[in-house]
Amino acid sequence: MSTPKIQPPQLPKGTRDFYPESMRVQNFIFDTWRRAALRFGYEEYEGPMFEHLELYTGKSGDEIVSQLYDFTDKGDRRIALRPEMTPTLARLVIQKGNSLKKPFKWFSLPRLFRYERAQKGRLREFFQLNLDIIGTDSIFAEADLLAAIASMLFDFGLKAEDFVIGVSSRKLLNTYLQEIGTPDASKVYPILDRRLKIGKESFEMELAAAGLSKEQSEKLDQFMNCKSVNDVDAIIQSEASKEALAEIQRLFGTLKAAGYADCVTLDLSVVRGLAYYTGIVFEVFDKGKSMRAIAGGGRYDSLCEKLGGSRVPGVGFGMGDVVLADLLNDHGLLPDPKQILDVYVASFTNDMDQIFKVASIFRAKGFSVSHPLAEAKLGKQMEQANNQGAKWVVYVDGDKAPEGQFEFKNLATGELGTGTPETIAKIISQ
Amino acid sequence: MSTPKIQPPQLPKGTRDFYPESMRVQNFIFDTWRRAALRFGYEEYEGPMFEHLELYTGKSGDEIVSQLYDFTDKGDRRIALRPEMTPTLARLVIQKGNSLKKPFKWFSLPRLFRYERAQKGRLREFFQLNLDIIGTDSIFAEADLLAAIASMLFDFGLKAEDFVIGVSSRKLLNTYLQEIGTPDASKVYPILDRRLKIGKESFEMELAAAGLSKEQSEKLDQFMNCKSVNDVDAIIQSEASKEALAEIQRLFGTLKAAGYADCVTLDLSVVRGLAYYTGIVFEVFDKGKSMRAIAGGGRYDSLCEKLGGSRVPGVGFGMGDVVLADLLNDHGLLPDPKQILDVYVASFTNDMDQIFKVASIFRAKGFSVSHPLAEAKLGKQMEQANNQGAKWVVYVDGDKAPEGQFEFKNLATGELGTGTPETIAKIISQ
Repeated sequence: MSTPKIQPPQLPKGTRDFYPESMRVQNFIFDTWRRAALRFGYEEYEGPMFEHLELYTGKSGDEIVSQLYDFTDKGDRRIALRPEMTPTLARLVIQKGNSLKKPFKWFSLPRLFRYERAQKGRLREFFQLNLDIIGTDSIFAEADLLAAIASMLFDFGLKAEDFVIGVSSRKLLNTYLQEIGTPDASKVYPILDRRLKIGKESFEMELAAAGLSKEQSEKLDQFMNCKSVNDVDAIIQSEASKEALAEIQRLFGTLKAAGYADCVTLDLSVVRGLAYYTGIVFEVFDKGKSMRAIAGGGRYDSLCEKLGGSRVPGVGFGMGDVVLADLLNDHGLLPDPKQILDVYVASFTNDMDQIFKVASIFRAKGFSVSHPLAEAKLGKQMEQANNQGAKWVVYVDGDKAPEGQFEFKNLATGELGTGTPETIAKIISQ
Repeated sequence: MSTPKIQPPQLPKGTRDFYPESMRVQNFIFDTWRRAALRFGYEEYEGPMFEHLELYTGKSGDEIVSQLYDFTDKGDRRIALRPEMTPTLARLVIQKGNSLKKPFKWFSLPRLFRYERAQKGRLREFFQLNLDIIGTDSIFAEADLLAAIASMLFDFGLKAEDFVIGVSSRKLLNTYLQEIGTPDASKVYPILDRRLKIGKESFEMELAAAGLSKEQSEKLDQFMNCKSVNDVDAIIQSEASKEALAEIQRLFGTLKAAGYADCVTLDLSVVRGLAYYTGIVFEVFDKGKSMRAIAGGGRYDSLCEKLGGSRVPGVGFGMGDVVLADLLNDHGLLPDPKQILDVYVASFTNDMDQIFKVASIFRAKGFSVSHPLAEAKLGKQMEQANNQGAKWVVYVDGDKAPEGQFEFKNLATGELGTGTPETIAKIISQ
């Protein structure tokens, strides 16, 4: 009976398969993220892979739906695969209310989904590290997050000259827009966000369309061109602007004390598209800015309120895996993706029961162990040991080994020996 | 400006939130799974969270759709959140064809989705460990998987008397059904699968409806009541049945050599619902069988063929997180979910820059470190240190510490001291 050949299904567009070689690289990224987050005292959390659609429309408006994987489930619920983690975080915070001791520092490694055109550095399904500090207005929360970013990028092997954390402040931008008498600031943010992409002429035209005079437009351009805290200080006038700038200065001072002065810079071109940021905003780029942002975030003090809770201040960032992996790859910082094993158990006589027995002995000592799964010539077994990255081979039935001992071989050096499991374990552990 | 209060969105039905306390328990399960899989030489892989719907209907028929989260995406693709990992695995195997060196041992920790009634031990969204061996017909692949199951359940702290791996064989069942002259075996499997639930009377009625005579039905009932290899051996007649039984005997012999004789038993009531199993099948239960199965799996030699590839033998199992966590909880084997930190950095004078500086020093030595994020009285700082599970407090500005040294305190013993970061690090590491 032969069944008609069907075309095997394909990988869905914009998603990835992780064969073991790429999974080891992926796990290197996850492990490094997690280790850094724990070192900074963040606690891990997770949520469901999908949420009720209104959690996202409630935060970002109905226009977000066009970028979502949304659907109606069999119980007629409007559902969306999560495009970001912050709304879930806000839901968790709102649910527990005052029973959560604040401030707290949480992290997550969510898998996220966005229905958009797949291109370099941007996929429809990706992973993102999220760090958030909830429940404090203090600028030292921002300092903690930025120190964690710099520290974890160092963990990956990057140096201060390889990346830069550009810092701006929605508060400062807002007070300056007030200072120069901008009629409607909310119309100006998206224009500022596009500024470097659209060029000076379009920038001025769009500002004019938003109701700014030529003088206001020029002042704003001058402001946006500031490269340092001193530049800004020379321009701003209002008490509110001075206060917002002092906050940035405080942040930079603390990061200097923590040893990360070289990693941060004032970058007023960082606006962040999302409407809900209320204070410091930041983005992390490779030094040449040749790639998309490695990470981005900021302060969002009114998000919980917007979603039906009370006001809870928060600040956080997301760092995606795709751009980060590209950057690490460019710097030769991704690990060797080959399999590594401690021990391969081999047999001259295909004594399978003895193979399983000896494998159990070495696994009980904590070693990773493999062995043939069917009768095979020794040459074939050695080939498999090499393919699987085994460092040592233990022979269960070598005739040079006395009773209770085994022959073994160091695959890197070719060195041979005999010993009890205990002595072999000692040698392997060295 | 006050926005109208909206109802905060709820957690979707059948899914879970993982606040840090439950996330630490969840990570304990993931870590134990992963460590055991690596110890047995399995390599981790992953795939996308959703696949083209036809991958699932191609394997399990159209009736599967009623249990799926399926939808049409914005590119008009029929998509389903993955309900199990095996179809994705088969797709990966088919895609790479002969370039994958076989046999290979892979594992994955997929998150899975099934639209079914949420109840004890069964959720709509859950995690599942999958171990599979692809590319060998050898019964030693089954032995490897069952040894890994027993070994990882021991890792969790369970003992041989707490669980049992029930083993049966679709091959044996099939040869015996042929032996007694069953007209259509495919109709009989689902009835055998329900046998213990529906009782003897319904069992016999359903078999009669499937075309079995009273004599055939009685023979089958006698067969299903066998409790040991010897029981079966006394009944079966055909060469094919004897061969299928010998395979089970071989499997048990090898597991005995590996040290897991007490963990496995012949259990012909294990049939496994899925149509694609072709050889050994098994399920793992708590000893009293008071819960759903902890794990289940078997040999599926024709799956790749069914999905449009060539014939590739495979054997594997899945172990869900929900029933496992319930079982571990019943045995008091889940870890303390509290946060643990190495060091909390405190300050008598709220010297925030110094706090950040000292935190950096201890993090650079690999310790997990937290500290106040805003100015706070020392009592408040100590409360936070305790809440966060800090083992040590380092004071940045204690007046008893000479230049270059810090006062520190062991929070468990109350012991006080002074030292350089290096000497403190040594004490903490002890």
